[in-house]
Formats: sequence, structure tokens, C-alpha cells
Amino acid sequence: MSKIAIIGHGTVGSGVSEVLRGGAELFSRRAGRDVSLKYILDINPIDDPCGITDFSTILNDPEVDVVVETVGGATHALDYTRAALNAHKSVISSNKELVATYGDELLALAHESNVNYLFEGAVGGGIPIIRPISQCLLANRLEEVYGILNGTTNFILTKMTDERMDFAPALKRAQELGYAERDPADDISGKDVCRKICILASLAFGHHVYPDDVPTTGVEDITAEDIIWAKSKGYAVKLIGRAVRVEDGISAYVAPHLIPKSNLLAGVGDVYNAIITCGDTVGDVMFYGRGAGKLPTASAVVADIIDAVKHKNERKYFDWSPAKSGWLIPPDELKSQWYVRGEGLCDEKPNGKFAMRVLL
Amino acid sequence: MSKIAIIGHGTVGSGVSEVLRGGAELFSRRAGRDVSLKYILDINPIDDPCGITDFSTILNDPEVDVVVETVGGATHALDYTRAALNAHKSVISSNKELVATYGDELLALAHESNVNYLFEGAVGGGIPIIRPISQCLLANRLEEVYGILNGTTNFILTKMTDERMDFAPALKRAQELGYAERDPADDISGKDVCRKICILASLAFGHHVYPDDVPTTGVEDITAEDIIWAKSKGYAVKLIGRAVRVEDGISAYVAPHLIPKSNLLAGVGDVYNAIITCGDTVGDVMFYGRGAGKLPTASAVVADIIDAVKHKNERKYFDWSPAKSGWLIPPDELKSQWYVRGEGLCDEKPNGKFAMRVLL
Repeated sequence: MSKIAIIGHGTVGSGVSEVLRGGAELFSRRAGRDVSLKYILDINPIDDPCGITDFSTILNDPEVDVVVETVGGATHALDYTRAALNAHKSVISSNKELVATYGDELLALAHESNVNYLFEGAVGGGIPIIRPISQCLLANRLEEVYGILNGTTNFILTKMTDERMDFAPALKRAQELGYAERDPADDISGKDVCRKICILASLAFGHHVYPDDVPTTGVEDITAEDIIWAKSKGYAVKLIGRAVRVEDGISAYVAPHLIPKSNLLAGVGDVYNAIITCGDTVGDVMFYGRGAGKLPTASAVVADIIDAVKHKNERKYFDWSPAKSGWLIPPDELKSQWYVRGEGLCDEKPNGKFAMRVLL
Repeated sequence: MSKIAIIGHGTVGSGVSEVLRGGAELFSRRAGRDVSLKYILDINPIDDPCGITDFSTILNDPEVDVVVETVGGATHALDYTRAALNAHKSVISSNKELVATYGDELLALAHESNVNYLFEGAVGGGIPIIRPISQCLLANRLEEVYGILNGTTNFILTKMTDERMDFAPALKRAQELGYAERDPADDISGKDVCRKICILASLAFGHHVYPDDVPTTGVEDITAEDIIWAKSKGYAVKLIGRAVRVEDGISAYVAPHLIPKSNLLAGVGDVYNAIITCGDTVGDVMFYGRGAGKLPTASAVVADIIDAVKHKNERKYFDWSPAKSGWLIPPDELKSQWYVRGEGLCDEKPNGKFAMRVLL
């Protein structure tokens, strides 16, 4: 018997409770042990038989094996996660900011406490990517990981491309359809993608990469004219998070790119996400699906819950060490072709002009 | 310390020994235990310090924890696998024919013997798909799984499309490039895809689906004219293996389809494979990469080896029961639009004429 506590009753938290309750019998069979929801903690009292407002109830209940953190941010969520891991409870998170900023510390803490810290839902929503990188591709030395990691900006760029819209009306449309938050700053500035590529880079290359160290450009300066020009030359414009192995280290950055039609990423539209990994034995592998949303993210979180319950007495191992000094090489040193506004394709990025890399 | 024995020194077997030897230190760290190759068994003596010709050497060596079966076929490979599992050794396989035909029996035998039977390499080469379905998508009720599962036929269809070649010269080109075997019967008849969709259907829906029960049409009757017509209407022609949940059961079949450009599968060319799963919480997820070849398949096999070594004392659980009588519904009952040669798109498939389903 494993009892689950969810912290945070927002979009993801309520999705997790819905999915968990809808499939309790199936999940128990798949976990090989009874799984049931015991608490939902929120700062505001909620109308639910599992609703509580005091975290210590969870901490002091020995029946609770698994704590699901869907609080978001890196302040309270950090305190809750540290406390739960210290109390020898496994923690499942969909919180990319927390994992990107404190992943190494929290994984080490989970290891010390002999429990698991899992976060399949933190990158790519319901798309399996954390487990494939950390298990299925173990026989590879990964050379690169990159992709479309934010559904809101991909929706905006798709609208700008298909309907020749400018940025502002495309953003408004995304907000009307509920694809963009009222405050979409983290999406359009590339910050959200930055957190996700940090997590992927840390997993793929084995050392923690911090968001503050990753140069990040968003989509707000792209115009309909840039996109029309790119399209006329056979390119799609996509916001890409990218981490690539270079001599003596890795380079990681977030920026809009021109993607040739021959790359499957060019066909990834709307709110979809896609991640490509390049390994020395397997070559390129792509993972594609809904990168956000209540149920897709809950799908990933609940799979982690089943995993944590099933492997209650066993540790998942991520090859993720603390950051390595001098290991991050500025992306300026990566050779590239550039689209320069008003000039077309150039081999160098001129100063003071708006430019986007061409993905080769 | 875990010692590995490989049975069969063909394309996959030699790829596995190459990858294992090249990364022994890394893999040992990732498995949390020393991993090393001890035997390579082949019916013909091979020039390798690990080469042996007598299977009983492996069976009677208590140091060997993991046996890798890359023999192919379902006769000798079946005997080796049964014997190894009975001797309490985990078995890793890339043999789709064996898994598709005897998967339920061999998984049950592994369970009884308290060891693992893993086969990530049997479908999609190096593309992670077995583990994602059986672990990452556990929180979903899967409704459908389908995809491009054979690189040889996909290469042939790509050539026929891009260069307006007919079937015979496109096959010849594939053979010249080493993408098709000298006897390509299992590829072009759809038999290879049939085995793979049986494995995916069994995993996705929980009961064994046998190849003999899955109606299978290959690519040999497709003409350049069919493809040119389809292209003019915005469709790509692809050989698809498909299993879909219907009322009271599932339908599974293999046949060439017309794929609309809006489906990412339409853009999957050359020898690449792609598999789409549709789940009730996550929606559609696609997995894409090299579906065959020495190193991509070795990538999957070696990941299974690491997993088996790491979880030496723990069982992987596949939700895969014996076949269920009356559960397979003939695909004729699946509504579809059809391309009919000489007639174009029709709502019914007329008798006696060459026709292909349109994927909706």
C-alpha cells in the first residue's frame, strides 16, 4: 500500500488527482502495490475530501510514500521538496524551474535519503524524454540534444506563418484560446525553454547546467516579414533550445532558428513539442507530442508515481553531477549560417542587426 | 560483476560486442556493477578471444547473468532462450519473430525463473519504444498504435516517390545500398512489419497478438502511378502496421496507406521508422529514428543489458497476458476512405481492384 500526497491544486495538480482517481485499480496492478491518493495540499482550502492546508500532516504521516510537487517556482516548492526528501518520501515533480535550478542538490538529497526524485513531467509535458535519455539511450555518447520545447511560442510562430499575422495579434489569439498565460513573459522571453534545455543538457551530458549560464533569446522581436522571407526560401522559424558537445565542453543556448524543411522539426506546428537527441550509436531520435497541458503533464507525473511505488526499495539513477567549471562554452563560438534582417543569409552575424541562426 | 554471453555473431551480434567493448567502463558505471563480455557463441568458429561454439559452456557458467540472443528465427533461438531462462539467466533479444510468436510464453518463463526477458531492439531498432509504452505511458489507456516499422520498404517507397521509380528498380537500388537483404521477401511482403505490430499491440493492449492472426499486405503491387496520383492529391504512400482499440476488442493489420501531409508520418522518409501512440491522457506521441542497422539496434540491446544488470534482483513487468479468444476484430470492419486504382478516392473498397486505405 502506497499513499500519495499532492502539493498544489492548480492545473497540473488537479489533473494528477483526476487521472489518479480515474485509474486507481489499473495503476495499482501496474505498480504491483495498492496506490491511492490521501492528501491534496493547497494554501487555499479546497472542496475535496483529501484537501488539507497544513504541510506537516503529510510530513508526519508514515503512510505517505510519495509526494507530488506541482507548486511551481523555486521558493516554497524547494522547501517542500527538501523536507519531503529528508523525511524519506519520494518526490515527483513537474516543476522545471526547480529541477533546472536545484536538480543536482535535490537528486543528491534523494540519494542520501534512499528515495527517488523523478520529473518526467518537467520537460515536454507528456512526451517520454527523461526516461528514454536516462535509460534507453544509455549505450550512447550523446552529441547533441535540441528541440521545440514551448507550446505557446510554437503556436504563435505557427499562426504568424500560416496566417501572416504579426507577433502581437498572434499572442492575443494564443491567450484567447488559453494556450498562453495572462502573463506570458516566461514563454515569449525563452526562459521556459531555457529551464527545459538545462534539464535535458544536465541529463544528456552529466553535469548540472544552470539557467543563468545559458544565453537566451525569445521570440518577441520576430516579425511577419522575417517569417515570410524564411518561408520563401524553404525554412520554418522555430524557437529552439539546444545543447551540443564541443571541444572541451558543451554549448547551450535558446534562440529562434531557421529550420530547413528537410528537418522534421519544421513540420511540428501548433502547441506541439519535439525533441531530437543525437547519439553516437543510434543516430538521431525524435520524440514528439503535446508538451504541456493538464492531462498530458498528468500522464507523465502519474507514470512517475507508478514507477516510484513499484521501485519503492530501489533507486533510479541519473547520471547528473554538480556543475563543472569552465565546461560551458559560449555559443558564439559555434559556426553557423545566419539570417540577417534586410540582408538574407550570411556567414557571420553582424553587430546591431536582428539575426537568427540557420539550423544545419 | 555481471558477465555477458552473446549468441549469434551476425550483424546485430557483432554490433553488440563492438558497442559493449567500446564502452565497458561507462556501462559498468551506469549499471552500478562491472559488466563484461565473456562469450560469443556462433555455429561457425570465429576469430575472437570470446568465441565459442558450444552452448552448454554458457549454460553451465554461473558467472554469466545475461544472455543476448541475436540468432533470429523462431527455432534454435527458441531453444536457446528457453534453456537460458530456465537456467535463471536474463535474456535480451532483438529477435522480433521470436518475441511476436512466443512472447507470452517466454515472459511467463522469465517470471517463473525470476529473471528478465527484454527486447527493446525487436521493434524500431534503436528508437526507444518498448520502455516508453510499458513505463512512461502507464497512466494512459492506449487507443491506438501505428507506424512505419520497416526501413527497407520505406526507402523503396521514398525512391518511388522522389524519383518516380517503379517498384523493381527501387528495390534493386535498396539492395545495392545494403538496405535490403538479398532475399527481401519478409520486408516487402509486410511480414516483418506484422511481427513488430504484434509486439506493439501485445504491449499496448495487454494480450498476445499472433502474426498468423494479423491480415498483412505488402508493397509489391504498388506502382509509380499510384504514388504519383497520391502525391498530386497531397498524400504520401507508406506501409503501415496498425493496431486500434474497437468495441469489444482490437483490430490489427499491415497494409500500405495514403497519409495526408498534415500527419508527421508523411514526412518520414528513407530508412527511417516512426511510431505513433494515442493515449487517453497524453494524446498522440511520436517516436522517430533509425529502425534498423547494426549500431542502432546494438544501442537498444546494450541499454537492455545495462537495465538487466542494474536490476539483477528485480523484475521488469510487462502487462502482456496470453491471447484472448474472439478479441481480434477483422480490420474490414474499420471504416475508412479508400484509394482505388483507376477510380480515385472511394468510401468503400470494391472487390477485385487494387486499393489502399487513406489514414484519417
